[in-house]
Amino acid sequence: MSKFWSPFVKDLVPYVPGEQPKLTRLVKLNTNENPYGPSPKALEAMRAQLDDGLRLYPDPSGDQLRQAVADFYQVPSSHVFVGNGSDEVLAHAFHGLFQHGRPLLFPDISYSFYPVYCGLYGIPFEPIALDESFQIRIEDYDRPNGGIIFPNPNAPTGCLLPLEAIERLLQAHPDSVVLVDEAYIDFGGQTAVALVQRYPNLLVTQTLSKSRSLAGLRVGLAIGQPELIEALERIKNSFNSYPLDRVAIAGAAAAFADREYFQQTCTRVIESRELLVERMQALGFEVLPSAANFIFARHPQRDAAALAGALREQGIIVRHFKQPRIAQFLRITIGAPEQNQALLDALGSILSA
Amino acid sequence: MSKFWSPFVKDLVPYVPGEQPKLTRLVKLNTNENPYGPSPKALEAMRAQLDDGLRLYPDPSGDQLRQAVADFYQVPSSHVFVGNGSDEVLAHAFHGLFQHGRPLLFPDISYSFYPVYCGLYGIPFEPIALDESFQIRIEDYDRPNGGIIFPNPNAPTGCLLPLEAIERLLQAHPDSVVLVDEAYIDFGGQTAVALVQRYPNLLVTQTLSKSRSLAGLRVGLAIGQPELIEALERIKNSFNSYPLDRVAIAGAAAAFADREYFQQTCTRVIESRELLVERMQALGFEVLPSAANFIFARHPQRDAAALAGALREQGIIVRHFKQPRIAQFLRITIGAPEQNQALLDALGSILSA
Repeated sequence: MSKFWSPFVKDLVPYVPGEQPKLTRLVKLNTNENPYGPSPKALEAMRAQLDDGLRLYPDPSGDQLRQAVADFYQVPSSHVFVGNGSDEVLAHAFHGLFQHGRPLLFPDISYSFYPVYCGLYGIPFEPIALDESFQIRIEDYDRPNGGIIFPNPNAPTGCLLPLEAIERLLQAHPDSVVLVDEAYIDFGGQTAVALVQRYPNLLVTQTLSKSRSLAGLRVGLAIGQPELIEALERIKNSFNSYPLDRVAIAGAAAAFADREYFQQTCTRVIESRELLVERMQALGFEVLPSAANFIFARHPQRDAAALAGALREQGIIVRHFKQPRIAQFLRITIGAPEQNQALLDALGSILSA
Repeated sequence: MSKFWSPFVKDLVPYVPGEQPKLTRLVKLNTNENPYGPSPKALEAMRAQLDDGLRLYPDPSGDQLRQAVADFYQVPSSHVFVGNGSDEVLAHAFHGLFQHGRPLLFPDISYSFYPVYCGLYGIPFEPIALDESFQIRIEDYDRPNGGIIFPNPNAPTGCLLPLEAIERLLQAHPDSVVLVDEAYIDFGGQTAVALVQRYPNLLVTQTLSKSRSLAGLRVGLAIGQPELIEALERIKNSFNSYPLDRVAIAGAAAAFADREYFQQTCTRVIESRELLVERMQALGFEVLPSAANFIFARHPQRDAAALAGALREQGIIVRHFKQPRIAQFLRITIGAPEQNQALLDALGSILSA
């Protein structure tokens, strides 16, 4: 440890994102990107930003994008916060809403960035075990806490918590912020945004990286009542006045406005997922019920790490996590039909070898 | 204050950036943007990113850009950190390098974001008065500290600290990180990057918002020995794995590679500054010696706030700060020749009215 570091830095255990390989020939099913490109209208809006106007700072509050999100969800724009990817939005939420000295609660199997944020901001936390079928059991959250967070659908399981369960959780914890991280909600779930007007303790985060095919653009958002949004704004304005560049604001706003393209691509991904689940089951895999753009699957007779390695040798990358409870699972992103077929072919040949 | 907020949030005093007016007819000389657009090669590189590739995450460490910066400064790329604007880079540096319980030192007249970061991360600080001619006197920093930071040239004064003074400061404080914030260095100063190999306690930050005309793209960087860079990386990887989008990485790298355009535009801004200083002096203004793309000027007989108001009525916006020591100054960005002339004409008519 360097004498120059702030003392907490030596204890940080950074998040490790899925590999971003520089070889483009790989079938990349490891980081839940959308197999389809972004809306052509979003690309056009971005192109229109690429001129001398880039010499000027962007709008610090990204109002064009906030309005596009507000229009989409029929909420006032004062309920919307935007940031440099939902990871940045989550970081600000942890910093501004979860430092209460009491433990933050989240599922034991969940987005592995949550404990990292806790380390960054000195937030105690308590992982709550999913039940045996990897579902969130909301009764298990009935304990003193400084907030609750979970992805819905959960990652990396893909399992969905119904909206009425979320509502019961909000009612049971009126003094805690309940953050529903909806990175994958558009692939089969119902958004909790519908509950925002009724529950001042609800914050919903979303990203444009998955259902809007803009992982490369880094845009995320939060929706909640102004009381919660103000905490995020205060942090943001004490951290970086201009988190979103001009290209990102314009592109993200146009992506939200293009509902038709969005719905088409989501539908195609969902159809591909259903087909993939069926074929994987035919190969002997157990697949958790997924409402996301990935599946979480294990083969009763095959070691998951070995399977991931064998796929890699065939140029297909999927994600494998080493945590004990899920070490026998593979998380596989839904690709384009030909990618999914390549995966099935490879698995077929590995399993029959 | 909301019961949902982390307690420190209520005490945050966010930074207030210069106005970004939505009227485009204004002569905007208030936020130190470059009057010239970005390099055409940078625009071209960005255009090449606007395709289906945006569905994929960017390189989390922005290696293409780190290499371009390393090539430009002839340092190893392990000495380079990149982020979402130099404000984000500064935030990580405050968090990761300045939390030592001892006060951070910076000039009393300086970038007004510094005390805001201190509020965000609970860092005690001690402003050190500039001397009567608004210069940094390095002897005044000889006191216990948890770090030293200043812009060079300083903002909003524009005054430059010579490299040999910086070197003496580095030698006098071998156990403290000295952060030299070079947002404006390319308009007349010598970069401290030349000292990085010899001083493990030196961190230099820069931005592409000023001399590379990319305020709208949000890219900043830090250069220092790997020991300091590692602290920034650890924070970044615990905060947001992908701070720079694909468009920004490509555009910023191309901007760094296009040395000719960069030198031409910097030279034009410097020449405009020298001419503007001369004309302002002819109008009776005192102008601090500037090595930046702005000047800091006062008129002995006219109230600065009143002057700023009168300019605003004529469609010209400049920056006025209310702090007592500088309340009689205006900070005026160097514009294109016709903008500078519009300013001079307006001032001429205001002063003779």
